[in-house]
Amino acid sequence: MGNAKWEQFAARMRELTDLGRALSLLSWDQSVVMPGKAAASRARATATLDSLTHSKATDPGLGDLIDDLIDDPSLDDLRRRSVEVAKRDYDKATKVPDDLVRALAEATGIGYQVWTEARPASDFAVFEPHLEKIVALRKEYADAVGYANERYDALLDDYEPGLTAIEVETVFAELIDGLEPIVDRVLAKAGPAPAFLRGKFDVGAQEAFCQWLVGHLGFDTAGGRLDVSPHPFTIQISAGDTRQTTRYTADELLSSVYAAIHETGHALYDQGLPEEWLDLPIGHYSSLAMHESQSRMWENQVGRSREFVGFLLSKLKERFESSLGGVTPDEFYEGVNHPERSLIRVEADELTYNLHIVLRFELELAMFRDELAVADLPEAWNKAVEQHVGLRPSDDRKGVLQDMHWSGGMQGYFPTYTLGTLYAAAFYAKAETDLGSLEGDLKRGETRRLLEWLRANIHSKANRYDTKVAAEKVLGAPFSPKPFLDYLETKYFELYDA
Amino acid sequence: MGNAKWEQFAARMRELTDLGRALSLLSWDQSVVMPGKAAASRARATATLDSLTHSKATDPGLGDLIDDLIDDPSLDDLRRRSVEVAKRDYDKATKVPDDLVRALAEATGIGYQVWTEARPASDFAVFEPHLEKIVALRKEYADAVGYANERYDALLDDYEPGLTAIEVETVFAELIDGLEPIVDRVLAKAGPAPAFLRGKFDVGAQEAFCQWLVGHLGFDTAGGRLDVSPHPFTIQISAGDTRQTTRYTADELLSSVYAAIHETGHALYDQGLPEEWLDLPIGHYSSLAMHESQSRMWENQVGRSREFVGFLLSKLKERFESSLGGVTPDEFYEGVNHPERSLIRVEADELTYNLHIVLRFELELAMFRDELAVADLPEAWNKAVEQHVGLRPSDDRKGVLQDMHWSGGMQGYFPTYTLGTLYAAAFYAKAETDLGSLEGDLKRGETRRLLEWLRANIHSKANRYDTKVAAEKVLGAPFSPKPFLDYLETKYFELYDA
Repeated sequence: MGNAKWEQFAARMRELTDLGRALSLLSWDQSVVMPGKAAASRARATATLDSLTHSKATDPGLGDLIDDLIDDPSLDDLRRRSVEVAKRDYDKATKVPDDLVRALAEATGIGYQVWTEARPASDFAVFEPHLEKIVALRKEYADAVGYANERYDALLDDYEPGLTAIEVETVFAELIDGLEPIVDRVLAKAGPAPAFLRGKFDVGAQEAFCQWLVGHLGFDTAGGRLDVSPHPFTIQISAGDTRQTTRYTADELLSSVYAAIHETGHALYDQGLPEEWLDLPIGHYSSLAMHESQSRMWENQVGRSREFVGFLLSKLKERFESSLGGVTPDEFYEGVNHPERSLIRVEADELTYNLHIVLRFELELAMFRDELAVADLPEAWNKAVEQHVGLRPSDDRKGVLQDMHWSGGMQGYFPTYTLGTLYAAAFYAKAETDLGSLEGDLKRGETRRLLEWLRANIHSKANRYDTKVAAEKVLGAPFSPKPFLDYLETKYFELYDA
Repeated sequence: MGNAKWEQFAARMRELTDLGRALSLLSWDQSVVMPGKAAASRARATATLDSLTHSKATDPGLGDLIDDLIDDPSLDDLRRRSVEVAKRDYDKATKVPDDLVRALAEATGIGYQVWTEARPASDFAVFEPHLEKIVALRKEYADAVGYANERYDALLDDYEPGLTAIEVETVFAELIDGLEPIVDRVLAKAGPAPAFLRGKFDVGAQEAFCQWLVGHLGFDTAGGRLDVSPHPFTIQISAGDTRQTTRYTADELLSSVYAAIHETGHALYDQGLPEEWLDLPIGHYSSLAMHESQSRMWENQVGRSREFVGFLLSKLKERFESSLGGVTPDEFYEGVNHPERSLIRVEADELTYNLHIVLRFELELAMFRDELAVADLPEAWNKAVEQHVGLRPSDDRKGVLQDMHWSGGMQGYFPTYTLGTLYAAAFYAKAETDLGSLEGDLKRGETRRLLEWLRANIHSKANRYDTKVAAEKVLGAPFSPKPFLDYLETKYFELYDA
């Protein structure tokens, strides 16, 4: 039986994959290429394909195939894993009533629109009823999908399959305990940011540099592209087609370069997923945190290391001699790592970034535990920023309104940023345990040995295991925030003699 | 009844439209943006969406709705036309067995691939069995779809609904009778091509010029794009999203400029289709010949007129002073219109281009009337070129293997090029009858009055009528090749004092 049913199952997965590819392309095109006047017609085409995909993904025939295959003893482990993941997805998709899917799509569509206007006006009141509605619908969603322990688990599960709120709380508590003393000690020593980071940097030269850099790091440009978009992102359209973006401003150099390094981390993961699995659930990336572990590792452990920064500066000087000619490697290293207390998450440095995530997670959790009302969110936000970051936002634009996630109904997403950061440090430490120090490699701008290790230990595993299990297998030990704390301590105490 | 059934019908048309938009984007992306390694995965995604579209387009529920609506007296003329066109499409799609659809897709997929290798090698023998197969399948296709008179009518009908082989034969005979004496007389006087057409033309400057030019001609860049691809084309992705391409070579200037003008003609038509009809069959372009009438008119009647050429040269000199500084308007006018006998269709000039089309049509017709075997095609081709063009191809690369159409199963397509050219001249003459001479406008580079006339008389009608009927309504008289012959005679006798 197994084989014929499996072939039918695989054919349905291929069809869903191809619909997903078309949707990915519609989305990439919309962010990078699409003319402005196409917004409405593109939104409708996307909705039509979404709806077609949803009806294929919830087709009872697929459910029957999954039920037949899930107990089939003749399936090998790889096929069984694909069927298990498919079952999880199918059960979830069929549990959510169509009315709720539509209501969420509508509320977040409008909510996002209202947010784009409320943020610059710093007007939480106009956004509040929409967020109220979105949070209520996300609670309905969590209740429909179901959870063992608490509502927030159902939201988390969309981004980190199997992870629970309690687990995140435990990890984040340990992180904060270790992080706060390091932050205090380092910031007491760090002065203002170096001046050379601002200047005039020809956009064409930045583009040429980033195109060279992503290729140098191993990004296969015959199987991908680097383009421009206001918010950098990476998307895998299909096998042989992974696209990343960055953005350029003429008065600043590092944002384009470090966005490109970050996105290259994502892109290398996508390009390393085994092509023969790509049509099956086992072939997808493991989770958002796993994806973020790759981007953060390339951006920080590699890209902001003293060794690689020296290499980077020498290469940048070839193109930006007039602005960077007098900058020393030590100055540049401090420049790309300079930490400070700040209000805006996306501008935060490596040392303080996770404080921003922890406070968002705490607020989300309080909302979904019915301990915090949306109306009380701005004040709760400001208090939390004061507690964790040590500053108080001057207005909601720089406070509760700064991120788009909640307007899009993406509650449960924020923790993946920090989890990814913690995984990055843990994986990098393990890579150096396995390979020996990578400092010599990075000094020469060489990343091949690291990439091969990532290919073998992470990329090639794709969605073979849920991220928590996958991480334990890579590390050979349970995961903890300790490698990240060790990494920060070593790096920043050395940098500021703290 | 009408209203509820109509709404169901319209919803199905919207869904088909959205699937078509996704397919259009996949296709545009493949030609302009896609990384090379994605070829196989893109082909499969396209095939999956094609197959989904086909199953929606042949769904018996759609057939029932069409049957109910086609006799509904409460429908207004516009809705009735949409239902009639939908019925024609539905009947055709359901008449072709799935096996034949697949066999054709496969044979043309492989056939095209083999052709790309056979052409540079000038090796017809390797292509012959594939073309044999394709022609046999296209005959099967014609028989499945059905026809009143002869097989070729069924092929033509895909591109020019309602047109018959006999009608094309009649028009082409009249065209050739008038054209050959003009060609002979003009070529006896025309010398070799002017030397200034070759030189060094910075590609960046060409790009900037073409971007300016297409906007100047009325192309709405907020609702479209101009990109680069090896074979220039125009595609409407959706409302507010019409994309055209051109291509640049550093040693030649006119090919990028005239490709951009040609494609702008296509793009202005697409951008002029009424947005409120776009989801319905009535909102599509009327036919390929109608589309080509627009591109040819802008390229030739406008773009190669003595008046517009003067304007164009003055604008080009602003950017290419070193190459064009010494060129006079008269020299430039001769340069962009210089005629000569040639072997390659896509390089042929306005005077001799249609000779290439007529011979292709005659050969296609002979094949589908079972009067010419594929094996005898190369010799028949060479004879036909000698007869119509007065040259003999040195090899099949410059002969029967030069065009991709037959390898793609597009028999019946070639006549639309010439029909479009003939319509262009007829429409332009009618525009000048209605508006008075446009020479003064073109001298100033002004095309607004012409565009408004095209919007009112052609673009806004979309697929309200089949092209033959639409043309008669525009012209107020039956269509004939005479305006085109008059145009050529006036233009070329004046140019060469013939």
